Amino acid sequence: MELNEALARLAELQKKLYAYQAADSALYLDGTTVAPKDTAEGRGVALGILAGERHRLFSAPETGELLDFLWERGAELDQLRRRQVEELRRSYAQLTRIPAEEYMEYAMLTNEAGDVWHRAKEAGDFELFRPLLEKLVAFNIRFAGYYDSTKAPYDALLNEYERGVDTVYLDGFFAALRGRIVPLLRAIGEKEQPDDSFLYRHYPVEAQRKFSDYLMEVLGLDRAHCTIGETEHPYTLEFNNKDVRITTHYHEDDVGNSMYSVIHEGGHAKYELGISDDVQYTCLAGGVSMGVHESQSRFYENLIGRSKPFIQAVFSKMREFFPEQLGDVTAEQFYRAVNKARPSLIRTEADELTYCLHIMVRYELEKQLIGGTLEARDVPEAWNRLYREYLGVDVPDDRQGCLQDSHWSGGAFGYFPSYALGSAYGAQMLKNMEAEIDVWGPVSRGDLSGVSEWLREKVHRYGGLLEPADVVKNACGQFDPAVFADYLEKKYSELYGL
Amino acid sequence: MELNEALARLAELQKKLYAYQAADSALYLDGTTVAPKDTAEGRGVALGILAGERHRLFSAPETGELLDFLWERGAELDQLRRRQVEELRRSYAQLTRIPAEEYMEYAMLTNEAGDVWHRAKEAGDFELFRPLLEKLVAFNIRFAGYYDSTKAPYDALLNEYERGVDTVYLDGFFAALRGRIVPLLRAIGEKEQPDDSFLYRHYPVEAQRKFSDYLMEVLGLDRAHCTIGETEHPYTLEFNNKDVRITTHYHEDDVGNSMYSVIHEGGHAKYELGISDDVQYTCLAGGVSMGVHESQSRFYENLIGRSKPFIQAVFSKMREFFPEQLGDVTAEQFYRAVNKARPSLIRTEADELTYCLHIMVRYELEKQLIGGTLEARDVPEAWNRLYREYLGVDVPDDRQGCLQDSHWSGGAFGYFPSYALGSAYGAQMLKNMEAEIDVWGPVSRGDLSGVSEWLREKVHRYGGLLEPADVVKNACGQFDPAVFADYLEKKYSELYGL
Repeated sequence: MELNEALARLAELQKKLYAYQAADSALYLDGTTVAPKDTAEGRGVALGILAGERHRLFSAPETGELLDFLWERGAELDQLRRRQVEELRRSYAQLTRIPAEEYMEYAMLTNEAGDVWHRAKEAGDFELFRPLLEKLVAFNIRFAGYYDSTKAPYDALLNEYERGVDTVYLDGFFAALRGRIVPLLRAIGEKEQPDDSFLYRHYPVEAQRKFSDYLMEVLGLDRAHCTIGETEHPYTLEFNNKDVRITTHYHEDDVGNSMYSVIHEGGHAKYELGISDDVQYTCLAGGVSMGVHESQSRFYENLIGRSKPFIQAVFSKMREFFPEQLGDVTAEQFYRAVNKARPSLIRTEADELTYCLHIMVRYELEKQLIGGTLEARDVPEAWNRLYREYLGVDVPDDRQGCLQDSHWSGGAFGYFPSYALGSAYGAQMLKNMEAEIDVWGPVSRGDLSGVSEWLREKVHRYGGLLEPADVVKNACGQFDPAVFADYLEKKYSELYGL
Repeated sequence: MELNEALARLAELQKKLYAYQAADSALYLDGTTVAPKDTAEGRGVALGILAGERHRLFSAPETGELLDFLWERGAELDQLRRRQVEELRRSYAQLTRIPAEEYMEYAMLTNEAGDVWHRAKEAGDFELFRPLLEKLVAFNIRFAGYYDSTKAPYDALLNEYERGVDTVYLDGFFAALRGRIVPLLRAIGEKEQPDDSFLYRHYPVEAQRKFSDYLMEVLGLDRAHCTIGETEHPYTLEFNNKDVRITTHYHEDDVGNSMYSVIHEGGHAKYELGISDDVQYTCLAGGVSMGVHESQSRFYENLIGRSKPFIQAVFSKMREFFPEQLGDVTAEQFYRAVNKARPSLIRTEADELTYCLHIMVRYELEKQLIGGTLEARDVPEAWNRLYREYLGVDVPDDRQGCLQDSHWSGGAFGYFPSYALGSAYGAQMLKNMEAEIDVWGPVSRGDLSGVSEWLREKVHRYGGLLEPADVVKNACGQFDPAVFADYLEKKYSELYGL
């Protein structure tokens, strides 16, 4: 084989993988937004087949031969191609260990599970979802073995979302955080809470939609390349760096909910839209890892979106959208309200301080589910027990308990820790950013361009060109959870006068 | 090869073709509804690749061998399988004549052309669209040769949409219709026109949306399996017989426009939803031909939707949606208004009588474009000349002229005649239906179940199991355009007191 021919085949292979991903995304997007209710079956058939076709293409012996050939000629390749081959070989090695049939079966299962989870959540009926959860866990345990049989199953899954991360690392990370957050939370508990009742006045969906448009403008999201939709559970979906979708969910009795969903998903979208053109339609397109992705979404959501300068910048405009609801509220009051720290039930509505405790509950349960020490049927009880233990709250029903998140229904076990890691990465990025540029002056005027430019330069543009750890190092320096804990301590001490 | 194994492979092949179609549909649906504006490029890459993959799969030598094997064992197959093999062999023979590269290129071209057509129409700028139209025509001429090189190119394309139909047949059909419609129209021109000004009052989109929901209910469209969306140009898209989407376009100054779009697309949807389960995920799923499909959409739109009993049934409810706009209007006045016959510019807004003249313009132009006697650049002039000649109207701009329809931008040359054929089929179906069941009693009470049941029994359930001509024969008896002309003559004589 000639090198040029091999390179052409490499590009073609990746374009095909892109096309299968785009098909999958379009079907998923449709299924979660406008598709009629009773149509999951036919969509599942299509998704299953497409997953099988993609699997067949990617796991074909010729693909392996092509990648081996290019790997051997690595010295002759440019950095982009070399990195593509490296990544594809890693995926190939993993994928070829998953039998095509299991792979297809799993795609159909997650499609069905998404549908059932929706209904189970609506009805608050865990038993409806339980058989699916059992199957999902069993599949993930098997898949973990395919991914890396030298690791414990949950470690192998964690490694998929954030390469290099394992339970030893996370146990330490979470223990360190808990050691700082719990005393903080205890001290706050003794202080007077700010009034946040105005957040829960009646906020009509139509006005909230217009407010979302405004937020996207502030975030600098170009609507010709990024739209916003409405789904049960907000998400970001990227086709490529010119086509990204975010979704939100409007609650008429809670204006902060969608506001911070939009900013969070907007952060994901900024990342995807900021990836450079030269990795498009290759395996390096898209964010490099879940942890780095969440660092971006949570950076915009919390470090920027819940900062005093940002709220000062957007609040007067916000009052124009909600004159009756916020006419008697000041920016300072709003700032304090959206940073009110108190134990709660719902992860996506949790404040910045207690959020990691919600993650720790899920982390513990996943670890045990995949480790085989917890049965699916015992999840509600274990969930409720850990919420009591970590957050001190009683879970009244599974709808507000273990059925609240979509992740497991989509087969994502090992994803949740990325949220906490992302928060910690973000705090370090902010520290470095502050040392290099004037962050808060422009932000207090509603100008996020400097922040975005810094993140684009240090994180976004690479896509998957660098290893996750190198992107983190690039933007954060040496990883140190204490920076995040320091940030939380400083912010909440000031807020609560500790 | 064992017969059982071959049958399993036959089912698998068809499921894969279904999956590629579903992917294509989901991307198309997204592209025409919610996708951000500047995202056609990435979607085009995906569509092109998927079309290539589908082509590669279907045109593989093993597919041909499988189909030949099963064809030889035809006597041992049941009717369903035999028919599947017959249809697939026909498609295989055609497809294997199209080089994979051209096939992919064409998929990308139609995606781009759809986007450019949208912008050209918006700007009324034919020159923007012209280069695309040239390429589309050139591709279709080449493809016609691949389809059937023994036929003239346009005949080969016509045969794709309605097997057995050619220009000789259509020249005769249209001449016969013109001979009856033109005198009718002349006679009407001498009569006083009914007042239809109330149709063009201000009808807010939000109220029209609710009215659409009501119409779908009357049509018996189950919302758990069929949703309605909004696009520039209304269409119906089917994933399978449990998942169909229709779209409409709301004009605030024209209530009839969307009303009859919904009923028209609803008719297509009824067909798809009425196809029996046993042909799902096979090549026999979906309506059998464009002509038969249009017979169903136009049946609901015109023969039912523009009938006096139907309007009497829905009008009082309609006045509840539009109390100010229709408070001073009677059902009789509304009936006369939506049946007002007069030459006009826009096909989709044309009345039942002049509609076929709009089709004849397109038929003539397509025939010449594909026949090589008309250049793309001369289309606007030729279009305007024929509108003058057939309908007696002056076309003020290309937006209201040759840029009004999406068909050519999607590569559909030879589709338009199906609309006229469908109308003629429909009139014969109605005649037969009236002889067998009480059509108008129930319809006048808003009950369309008998009509739907009859059509389901005679047309819908078969999907592609029968030949188009056999479905037509089944529901119409011997095809005779005079039945349609008689129907028009009777209806419009009564309306205008001729």
